[in-house]
Amino acid sequence: MSQRLIPAILSGGSGTRLWPLSTDQRPKQFHALASERTLIQHAAARMSDTDGLVIAGPILICSERHESMVESQLGALAPAPSALILEPFGRNTAPAAAIAALVAQEADPHALVLLMSADHRIGDGFPETVARASSAALDRIVVFGVQPTAPETGYGYIEVGGPLSDHVNEVVRFAEKPNLATAEAYLAGARHLWNAGIFLFAPTVLLAEMERHAPDVLVAARAALAAAKRNGVRIQLRPDSFAACPSISLDYAVMEKTDRAAVIPMGADWADIGSWSEVWRLGGKDASGNVAHGDSILIDAANNMIWSEDQTVAVVGVSDLIVVQTKDGVLVLPKSRAQDVKQLVEQLKARATTPGA
Amino acid sequence: MSQRLIPAILSGGSGTRLWPLSTDQRPKQFHALASERTLIQHAAARMSDTDGLVIAGPILICSERHESMVESQLGALAPAPSALILEPFGRNTAPAAAIAALVAQEADPHALVLLMSADHRIGDGFPETVARASSAALDRIVVFGVQPTAPETGYGYIEVGGPLSDHVNEVVRFAEKPNLATAEAYLAGARHLWNAGIFLFAPTVLLAEMERHAPDVLVAARAALAAAKRNGVRIQLRPDSFAACPSISLDYAVMEKTDRAAVIPMGADWADIGSWSEVWRLGGKDASGNVAHGDSILIDAANNMIWSEDQTVAVVGVSDLIVVQTKDGVLVLPKSRAQDVKQLVEQLKARATTPGA
Repeated sequence: MSQRLIPAILSGGSGTRLWPLSTDQRPKQFHALASERTLIQHAAARMSDTDGLVIAGPILICSERHESMVESQLGALAPAPSALILEPFGRNTAPAAAIAALVAQEADPHALVLLMSADHRIGDGFPETVARASSAALDRIVVFGVQPTAPETGYGYIEVGGPLSDHVNEVVRFAEKPNLATAEAYLAGARHLWNAGIFLFAPTVLLAEMERHAPDVLVAARAALAAAKRNGVRIQLRPDSFAACPSISLDYAVMEKTDRAAVIPMGADWADIGSWSEVWRLGGKDASGNVAHGDSILIDAANNMIWSEDQTVAVVGVSDLIVVQTKDGVLVLPKSRAQDVKQLVEQLKARATTPGA
Repeated sequence: MSQRLIPAILSGGSGTRLWPLSTDQRPKQFHALASERTLIQHAAARMSDTDGLVIAGPILICSERHESMVESQLGALAPAPSALILEPFGRNTAPAAAIAALVAQEADPHALVLLMSADHRIGDGFPETVARASSAALDRIVVFGVQPTAPETGYGYIEVGGPLSDHVNEVVRFAEKPNLATAEAYLAGARHLWNAGIFLFAPTVLLAEMERHAPDVLVAARAALAAAKRNGVRIQLRPDSFAACPSISLDYAVMEKTDRAAVIPMGADWADIGSWSEVWRLGGKDASGNVAHGDSILIDAANNMIWSEDQTVAVVGVSDLIVVQTKDGVLVLPKSRAQDVKQLVEQLKARATTPGA
């Protein structure tokens, strides 16, 4: 028997650490960082009919400022989006997940929802993993875990419990981003997976758990959807009602509290491409280990990440450097400091809003 | 008694090593590299009535492609240019010097000519040095020497001979760009000065020496001037007649052969601003030794040369780096490799002319 599945894609990330490519106006999910397709195009085309799963048109949840970009990037894809939910501003993932579940339930009360971020990169084999998790998802919220390869302090972790079914296990607990010592202990203990931020659920299950653990979010989400302006697949949330939704993550509002969570290992490469050093790591390299995108010329240069949007970028005699040029600016810093772009962007924003600056 | 002097400014340099700021379309003399005025504006305003010298409007010699830039940059200066000699292409300095001498002679047969490059930076005290050299220049070609501070291999040298008059000495010989061992010997010997490429002469003297040592240059220069199209101060050289001028430097054609050369020490700071490390050396520095021009943001950055034309340039955690952004490109390289920009520009030009590249 076949099972219908509706992908729900959250396009809420800002990709701050990929400035000046990723900006508020065009965050990283709208860029082709690791292939010729943009990350949101990858996300929307990620699932295909597999092992009894029948894939419906995805639900997109994005900022209203990005509507035209979503339409131009996803317009040519099949299946066409079944809903385009427009947020007037971000309220984190819990309200978005609730609204997506409600919209999916309207469309097909028996379909599963696969909630995932628009800005992750996932390799081959993912649809098969989802198919394996689908029967467990009929009465559990299944999350997808990634085998840690390093003591990462930037991710949440999932402690894996006993087996439930084919590759699916209980969740002992969710752990927030750990410090380094804790992350090293997780890595050594081999009982923790990275939380990939992907959720597979029946809308009735998610909504029941939200009613139990975060009823205020669910009430506000229902009200925001009821007040939304609809036109075909387009669902425009109104600022006043959407503002009443608590800004809270799905992990914090539901997952850390529910006893109906389950976890399955990803069975596919996963990366959140959170920084320029990650773009370098994933990129195709020349003989000297450089990743170069766009019009560039490199002389005596090794292991650099070069990104040029519309100018000639010339680099001589440097190594392990990030050099990025876009219409929004030029960035130069060592790969080892790729995380500091976030701090830089904060300074740029502060400067932009300082009178007289 | 007062002596009339006509500055003659050669705007022929291309400033290759200052790419991407300096380009064929707008070479370095048309940029404000070391103050709010461009180098050619500095050159045109360099002399003022001093110690018996009366300064006439300068003669400008430039590429016809730069005519409008010269006019817009020098239009507001007083005294206005007395001649604007437009070259259809470059033929090195000897033909330009001959034509400038001929034009000066037409305007005032008793005036001295001070021939200098548009793209050097000269500090205070220069007009006084010129005044001191002016009586010697009535029958000698006086060149200006700079006290060496390092064994530079990029400059020509002048071996200084016995005294002639107030600070003016005979020239034993001109030496071309030396190798390092020779440059070190010159520095240790204290008998050599750098050749600043500035010449003070009476037109009759220069033309007589050119007739003696490089008659083909003089004949061709006279013919090119005779065939030029004139309109007010504008003297447009024609390609066919100007092409007949040998492409040769004044040093090689005349100075290395004449026995009527003399030398005077500059008595002022001199720099040719030939590279980005030189722009850094001359620039105003922040507390961390950075020189930053334009819209830039620096975090944990020391001793860098940052130049931004029209974008935000953000630099984190790097030192002793050159980062330049203009509409023509982005350049990143260590200060220690500033000379290699020339090689880079050659590669860029080769690339631009390679079929299929």
